[in-house]
Amino acid sequence: METVTNAIAHLMRPQSVAVIGASADSAKTAGRPVAYLKKHGFAGTVYPVNPRYDAIDGIACYPDVASLPSAPDVGIVLLGAERAHVAVGELAARGTHAAIVLASGYAETGAQGAQRQAQLLEAAGSMRLLGPNTIGLVNLTDRITLSASGALETDGLRAGGIGVVSQSGGILGALLSRAAASGIGLSKLVSTSNEADLDMADFIDYLVDDDATSVIALYMEAVRHPQRFRAAALRAAQAGKPVVAFKIGRSESGARSAVSHTGALAGSDRMYDALFRQTGVIRANTFADLLDLPNALSSARRPAGKRIAILTSTGGAGTLVADSLGVAGFETPPPDDATAARLRALQTGDHAVLDRNPIDVTLAGLQPDLLRAAIRTLLESPGYDAVAVIVGSSGLAMPDLMAGAIRDSLPGTSKPVIAYVSPHAPTITRLLNSEGVPALTSPESAASVIDAMWRHGQMLQRGQVMLAPLPRVVEIGAGELPIGSLDEAQAKALFARFGVPSVREIAVTSAKEAEDAARALGDKVVLKLLSNTITHKSDVGGVAVGVSADAVGARLNRMRDEVETATGVAATDFLVQEMVTDGIELILGLHRDPLGTAVLLGMGGVAAELINDTSMRMLDPEAGLVREDALAMVQELKTFPLLDGFRGRQPADVDALVSAIVAFASMATELGERLVEAEINPIFVLPRGQGVRAADGVAVIGGDA
Amino acid sequence: METVTNAIAHLMRPQSVAVIGASADSAKTAGRPVAYLKKHGFAGTVYPVNPRYDAIDGIACYPDVASLPSAPDVGIVLLGAERAHVAVGELAARGTHAAIVLASGYAETGAQGAQRQAQLLEAAGSMRLLGPNTIGLVNLTDRITLSASGALETDGLRAGGIGVVSQSGGILGALLSRAAASGIGLSKLVSTSNEADLDMADFIDYLVDDDATSVIALYMEAVRHPQRFRAAALRAAQAGKPVVAFKIGRSESGARSAVSHTGALAGSDRMYDALFRQTGVIRANTFADLLDLPNALSSARRPAGKRIAILTSTGGAGTLVADSLGVAGFETPPPDDATAARLRALQTGDHAVLDRNPIDVTLAGLQPDLLRAAIRTLLESPGYDAVAVIVGSSGLAMPDLMAGAIRDSLPGTSKPVIAYVSPHAPTITRLLNSEGVPALTSPESAASVIDAMWRHGQMLQRGQVMLAPLPRVVEIGAGELPIGSLDEAQAKALFARFGVPSVREIAVTSAKEAEDAARALGDKVVLKLLSNTITHKSDVGGVAVGVSADAVGARLNRMRDEVETATGVAATDFLVQEMVTDGIELILGLHRDPLGTAVLLGMGGVAAELINDTSMRMLDPEAGLVREDALAMVQELKTFPLLDGFRGRQPADVDALVSAIVAFASMATELGERLVEAEINPIFVLPRGQGVRAADGVAVIGGDA
Repeated sequence: METVTNAIAHLMRPQSVAVIGASADSAKTAGRPVAYLKKHGFAGTVYPVNPRYDAIDGIACYPDVASLPSAPDVGIVLLGAERAHVAVGELAARGTHAAIVLASGYAETGAQGAQRQAQLLEAAGSMRLLGPNTIGLVNLTDRITLSASGALETDGLRAGGIGVVSQSGGILGALLSRAAASGIGLSKLVSTSNEADLDMADFIDYLVDDDATSVIALYMEAVRHPQRFRAAALRAAQAGKPVVAFKIGRSESGARSAVSHTGALAGSDRMYDALFRQTGVIRANTFADLLDLPNALSSARRPAGKRIAILTSTGGAGTLVADSLGVAGFETPPPDDATAARLRALQTGDHAVLDRNPIDVTLAGLQPDLLRAAIRTLLESPGYDAVAVIVGSSGLAMPDLMAGAIRDSLPGTSKPVIAYVSPHAPTITRLLNSEGVPALTSPESAASVIDAMWRHGQMLQRGQVMLAPLPRVVEIGAGELPIGSLDEAQAKALFARFGVPSVREIAVTSAKEAEDAARALGDKVVLKLLSNTITHKSDVGGVAVGVSADAVGARLNRMRDEVETATGVAATDFLVQEMVTDGIELILGLHRDPLGTAVLLGMGGVAAELINDTSMRMLDPEAGLVREDALAMVQELKTFPLLDGFRGRQPADVDALVSAIVAFASMATELGERLVEAEINPIFVLPRGQGVRAADGVAVIGGDA
Repeated sequence: METVTNAIAHLMRPQSVAVIGASADSAKTAGRPVAYLKKHGFAGTVYPVNPRYDAIDGIACYPDVASLPSAPDVGIVLLGAERAHVAVGELAARGTHAAIVLASGYAETGAQGAQRQAQLLEAAGSMRLLGPNTIGLVNLTDRITLSASGALETDGLRAGGIGVVSQSGGILGALLSRAAASGIGLSKLVSTSNEADLDMADFIDYLVDDDATSVIALYMEAVRHPQRFRAAALRAAQAGKPVVAFKIGRSESGARSAVSHTGALAGSDRMYDALFRQTGVIRANTFADLLDLPNALSSARRPAGKRIAILTSTGGAGTLVADSLGVAGFETPPPDDATAARLRALQTGDHAVLDRNPIDVTLAGLQPDLLRAAIRTLLESPGYDAVAVIVGSSGLAMPDLMAGAIRDSLPGTSKPVIAYVSPHAPTITRLLNSEGVPALTSPESAASVIDAMWRHGQMLQRGQVMLAPLPRVVEIGAGELPIGSLDEAQAKALFARFGVPSVREIAVTSAKEAEDAARALGDKVVLKLLSNTITHKSDVGGVAVGVSADAVGARLNRMRDEVETATGVAATDFLVQEMVTDGIELILGLHRDPLGTAVLLGMGGVAAELINDTSMRMLDPEAGLVREDALAMVQELKTFPLLDGFRGRQPADVDALVSAIVAFASMATELGERLVEAEINPIFVLPRGQGVRAADGVAVIGGDA
């Protein structure tokens, strides 16, 4: 089998390309690849293959793959799904490194198509495959276009530092033409589409090692191989290359079924959020951000803090950007005295506003020397971490001067400078972007771009803590585990073996035993039915809270009667538990998803449930969950202040909660697929220093496979 | 004084315009107005005024206003702030209807500028004033440009149905050039800026009556005259003309000080939200939406429901739009059987996906006849309320055909059709917009546009309930009111007079009285310190909950000691209250803001407080608050299900809560400025049929003015 690395190296920089099913009519889709290779200056050999022509546009055309004078590095197959596998087989037979199959009609159409796709893969043998249903790939670094995307008609495609992997061919085309219109430079673009063989992770891996690529942009519909994606994203993080992802499927939130009640609170999209957060992937929240964020991140400039200077010659647009920055959590403080004095020394215009922010130099301040000096002054001010320059309608008449002045102020500082272009002014936007000054046309993007640069800077500073594998907490032999749906006591015993402590409790079968147990446990106790078949105890009268030792015997007898009346089952076992009165209730559960397994933490109480106050992290099948992530889960809860001494309350034992989350995660990685379901509900977090207590829980253990 | 109506009519359609301080150099700002009047085809008389020239571009120039052959309808004053008032005085003396003052350096710069502005206004006398610090106005309906905006250099300005009022001149320019680039048509644009005289509300009023305007778009920094704005927005609502507002200042949320604790929960931006909601103004959440939403709303098409068909020839972009629609709460169901059959009958392409949504006709479906028939089929389907057509890269080559096919399918249905343009394709975007098909370039805007059309349709259906004035609940003589900070019992008595019932309670001064009171009130009671000086009772030991009648006497004595120790004040008065055990706690308060007065409702409990679970409505100084708005306030709470029988709970008495909110609002409108502060905290909502009870509260009454 051709290695992935080798195959992608050939796909990106082939010496020779065969185009199977090439048309001589460049207006047709099948005519495009040969025409585009020529248009964009491919220096290698092109072999059109089509029995109907002797030559296409002056290039010799061959009747079939077998007739080619030499084995092509790459084959682009333009035939329909009914014939593509034949060409693929022939290319493989010639020793071609990789084939690109554009036809649709495969797995995306249903079962029959999936079968066709399997046949295609079989035909490829040891040759690697991109597609099917792909629009191909474009290497702008070397101006090699192996694609039929109509967007390649566009002139002015700029080579640059952004590598794009898209699971949609149409979106690849949209990004190509939009980037060209904005002067944003791209390195390589590939549409992986059906991913019968090569997938998103393979190309991320390639781009991490590609010197021409400084940022990776992903358009994702679904990750087919989460572990490979995770590994590739972590490699990018280690290499310091930012990864920006736009993931669709946000509205399917909550639609997927989940294994347990807490699981149902979290939709699959939240799993992606967790995955991105844990691998340092920056999520683009709008489609426009999928170009704007990588474009800004392609420079190494990162703001060290959150104080942004806004320099404007037009009040309104400056306020607009200031407001968007404020919504995103940034500050726009006025210049300090020294900076204001330097600004005043530059300009004597009577209505310039130099001691507020936005700093308004008015139209008079638009002379290039003045503008350059003002930007430089703000960059040199210790009070600012980045500068946003507003380009107003008055800049329209002098795009070069404006762009030049901004660009000239970049050297000598590593602080970011961005531009917001207020009117429709594509020329100046293109110019700025191509000069290395991120130019935004929406105030919201201006804010999200600064936010992304800030977040990535923070990530670089923190390092990639998520990479450190955890020591396993418990080694547990599979044989020791009970099988099936555990009762409450068994479930908590299981959690305790992995390090999550329980409330004190004693299993009883009679009124007398219950009384003895209650006396041993304290003032008031909780009495519960103990059963591995009746899961909703409280619905059938199987829970009594705050029972005194004197009353617990009679209460047990009454509970036995009520449960039997409600369920028809004679209850034999009961649990007497200490009553926790000064703890805060949370829920700790497991969420299974096509993407992997996650730990879900939720605040207890109806109000928290109504607002779905939960947080989630995916488990690394090897490493489980690190403490930093567990702590972040706790702090992400909207009602976290309840645990943190809100309004003079006792701070809760967050440390112990974090340990319990890590322990619960270790249980899940240790038991793997055998742990079908697990949830602690509630887990009480006691005041600081007093730990946590699992007060109820469920666990389902599957048999060995 | 010239009437506003008359002045604006002259501003919009002057027969003659004097341009004071006109420059012969059209590259200078002062050279622009005369040049633009000519460029855009003004048919009236232009009088440049400048002693330095005899003529400007062939138009006779006058040395001063006094020399003009006749009084101009409108004067544009281009002089600086140091001289503008002189010209304004001269124009007023000639009987000019209105002057436009462009100079900056007025109220926006501070106290000295505010003085200059007052001087300017004085100089205007009975003449009306637009500005100062304005970029002027543009009437595209009649191609009259009274503006120096550099955006008027733009060719291809389209006249259309959107009227724009902007409080920023720079933003007016940005909207002008952006609209021209997108083929979006505008009627009138005006920058009101400092609003020394004519303000936003005046121009909204004009646009409501302007036949050429079908939608009003507002760029707002701050409403200076809330009552006038409110009245104008309600007139627009009554006329069925949608108003879309982009309001900056979202990030100042919570920064403003407020009169009471609950007030502090709500920032001023929420007041605008309340104002918009109560006047039917649709808020644009992104700057791009400020053009996209009005553009879509300028047709009368409104979706009757939330089911959207997406027609595409490229998978990715269709999914992108479907996902954004899903996030916005819309459905994209597959075609029903009959519709799918009709689609199949149109096309025999083997890979077209016609039984899902997005409906993918593939490239083969891009033939105009086919496309037209497919759109028509979807519009005729009873299963869809609107159709979104995706334009992919393949449409680039045939913009006219694509746009024509979409336009041709419009007649015969009132369902909306919008287009999402996936690649950078300004030609097709312009064409579609100018043909009346809203064309969006971001998937998020595609969703917000459909959402705005849906919401406006709902508003039209519901009618303007907020217009009905309420009967006053209580007529209360001012003399009867106690003055100053009321104690708890007085405050609740006040609330009760307006119709908000209290818990039963008895004021006592001794242990013996407390015991008698407790026996009269029930099993367990609440004992509280009663004081109009100590506001935070619980902080000084002044609240005891769940006290029995037997214990209450001793408890009172202990409380007296504790309070004295804590405050140094000898407590004399106490309150014995019935204890409410089965109610849900909320907070009902008043929020004072520069914009007006609002009623604030908040869910009680720490979790709800942490997520700031509150809702707000502004009070009409005359009408108070209508029941529909009060009910909406309750239903907007994130934790509303707590009141509504969540998880088998008893439903709470929402009806009584709504009555209490309306009563509280009536108190506020009735007492007006005299009610400095008022808050009921908590108000208990009992189970359905049992009403509400105010359990504690504060009120501060000011003296007569």
